[in-house]
Amino acid sequence: MSVPPKSQLSTATLTLKSPLYLTPPCRVLRLRLCRPSWLPCVCLCHPKLCVRPPLLYGQLSSPVACLCNGAVTLSPQPAPVCFCSECSWEKTETEEKKKREMLYIIGLGLGDERDITMRGLEAVKSCEKVYMEAYTSLLSFGLDSHGLSNLEKLYGKSITLADREMVEEKAHHILEEARHSHVAFLVVGDPFGATTHTDLVVRAKKMGIHVQIVHNASVLNAIGICGLQLYRYGQTVSIPFFTDSWRPDSFYEKIHSNRTMGLHTLCLLDIRVKEPTLESLARGRKTYEPPRYMTINTAIEQLLEVVQEHQQPAYTEDTQCVGFARLGSDDQTIVAGTMRQLQMVDFGAPLHCLVITGNTHPLEEEMLEFYRCRT
Amino acid sequence: MSVPPKSQLSTATLTLKSPLYLTPPCRVLRLRLCRPSWLPCVCLCHPKLCVRPPLLYGQLSSPVACLCNGAVTLSPQPAPVCFCSECSWEKTETEEKKKREMLYIIGLGLGDERDITMRGLEAVKSCEKVYMEAYTSLLSFGLDSHGLSNLEKLYGKSITLADREMVEEKAHHILEEARHSHVAFLVVGDPFGATTHTDLVVRAKKMGIHVQIVHNASVLNAIGICGLQLYRYGQTVSIPFFTDSWRPDSFYEKIHSNRTMGLHTLCLLDIRVKEPTLESLARGRKTYEPPRYMTINTAIEQLLEVVQEHQQPAYTEDTQCVGFARLGSDDQTIVAGTMRQLQMVDFGAPLHCLVITGNTHPLEEEMLEFYRCRT
Repeated sequence: MSVPPKSQLSTATLTLKSPLYLTPPCRVLRLRLCRPSWLPCVCLCHPKLCVRPPLLYGQLSSPVACLCNGAVTLSPQPAPVCFCSECSWEKTETEEKKKREMLYIIGLGLGDERDITMRGLEAVKSCEKVYMEAYTSLLSFGLDSHGLSNLEKLYGKSITLADREMVEEKAHHILEEARHSHVAFLVVGDPFGATTHTDLVVRAKKMGIHVQIVHNASVLNAIGICGLQLYRYGQTVSIPFFTDSWRPDSFYEKIHSNRTMGLHTLCLLDIRVKEPTLESLARGRKTYEPPRYMTINTAIEQLLEVVQEHQQPAYTEDTQCVGFARLGSDDQTIVAGTMRQLQMVDFGAPLHCLVITGNTHPLEEEMLEFYRCRT
Repeated sequence: MSVPPKSQLSTATLTLKSPLYLTPPCRVLRLRLCRPSWLPCVCLCHPKLCVRPPLLYGQLSSPVACLCNGAVTLSPQPAPVCFCSECSWEKTETEEKKKREMLYIIGLGLGDERDITMRGLEAVKSCEKVYMEAYTSLLSFGLDSHGLSNLEKLYGKSITLADREMVEEKAHHILEEARHSHVAFLVVGDPFGATTHTDLVVRAKKMGIHVQIVHNASVLNAIGICGLQLYRYGQTVSIPFFTDSWRPDSFYEKIHSNRTMGLHTLCLLDIRVKEPTLESLARGRKTYEPPRYMTINTAIEQLLEVVQEHQQPAYTEDTQCVGFARLGSDDQTIVAGTMRQLQMVDFGAPLHCLVITGNTHPLEEEMLEFYRCRT
């Protein structure tokens, strides 16, 4: 494709295709798309014009633009490159770089190995190294000794478990690998359920590594199955295990304000995996507590303990809740009932979570009816 | 497998496996598991004992239990059946029934045909009829003329588009088909993003049809990609198109209370597909308006219009927001900036959504930096 001389460019009409956007207050005088396709391929000649093709940008990759004339402010690093025919060497270099390096963060959904998306599976298969995050959540099939090997069989790859220490202290190693090869980092649910993964993306991005996200179902939307409408939820809370000396109850105020507004509250229950024992920390050589997962029963016990201290309680034993165990897997259990009722239900193996209902709509009630605890 | 005489059953030890639970205040005296596997297979002989095997229940299917002795309260209909060896004919009948009838509600995720999960794909391939819900949301590839045919190619099935009229007025037809065959109902994102699908499940369930849900990513969790943490969101709001005579602003109070608590607000923007024109309604013969999708620019315009009426505004032109276009697809666009800045950005093709930020954590800020609008 031939590129018109600069004089033509400077008077060309602006035709913005959807994958491009301009950040204000730029006055676009001389912008031209080199190609009609979605490929981020722009030629911009206006001083101080800022163009960030969102295809790559949306994937947290490098901004791409051409500095045919004048200064262009672009961020983040690395420096902008151009795909236009005048600068074709740059294109080759960048595409080669992408071929070499990529960090995929891939959501696995909630059930078993069949819950990966086809997009995710394609990505895993293209990777030289596959890590699986193994501490902010837990696959239902992760409890099963065949869980990991089922994944490995499906992917045709061996999987390295990334425990808390590895992710928090040795992430640099994973990122260095991603500089030279395709690396997959598998996450239960959706990649952005936990802060840690955001941190990994930020670090990768700062190192100039291409990152691609593959979304999947997370507990935050799968709870919709009980019929309580997702847009009628307030802030999500986490319920940590109480100890004799540590009884943090900041969740109470959040539940209180959700209920004041008639909103449902999702309570995520504590998971303690690979926690060093206090004793071993004192001795300086780490040994670990056995993994613990909070049950709905314990959560309700703690919730009811906390509420006793309050004059106008946000909830009582008679408040309607919904308990979920192993959500999204074949043997998921969902029971709706009062806190008192749910406290007596054996929900079985982890993971558990709990929803405290706010005001309910008749359709919500109709759906809950199917899950109702009967006495 | 032989069943012990009743006298033995009445003194058997209770061993509850995870897929079973008992609802209080039952005192389980004579419960016995016939099988060690997850198959819901129980024999219960205690009057007024209520047992609901959650495997099937979790899938919104029929409760299964055996009334060897005494009354058992079970709901919903149809009446309980038993899988134990004494009542083996029941097992055959129920399993045959499941082979014949099934309504799958399958989330497709947000991008293109590759975002279906393997579980979802397996389910679609087993179906005789495949519907695709085409009015509460819109696949990015639904705008592309090849979108539907790509899905059909992948599934090896033809797909019937289920528009608003079909789902609201002719759902019974879909449900009748599911009585005799496997039917898939495809939904963009996750099945429970929209109330309509809950309604379909409730109706199916009341007709005694087996329902299975296949979860996937939804906009409610995919927005996590911008770095704002999902548990720091308040209630989600919808922004409807204003008309000259209809300017509903109930979203304002919700944004206000979210921001008072420092929480982020996800604003879902109006989609109007297959809306009959007022004129045609008056004439009694429906013709339809062209489809409309609210842009971020229009949403911000309406948000700023509404805020003018308030003394202590919940937000201003300088409030930080994040705009998302075509979230989850290859050419998604994400831009962070003030309302004033975003209002000048051309986000391109639909669907758009908007997040109004609350208080932000330093890690959230770091991630937003990659998407920041620069001037």
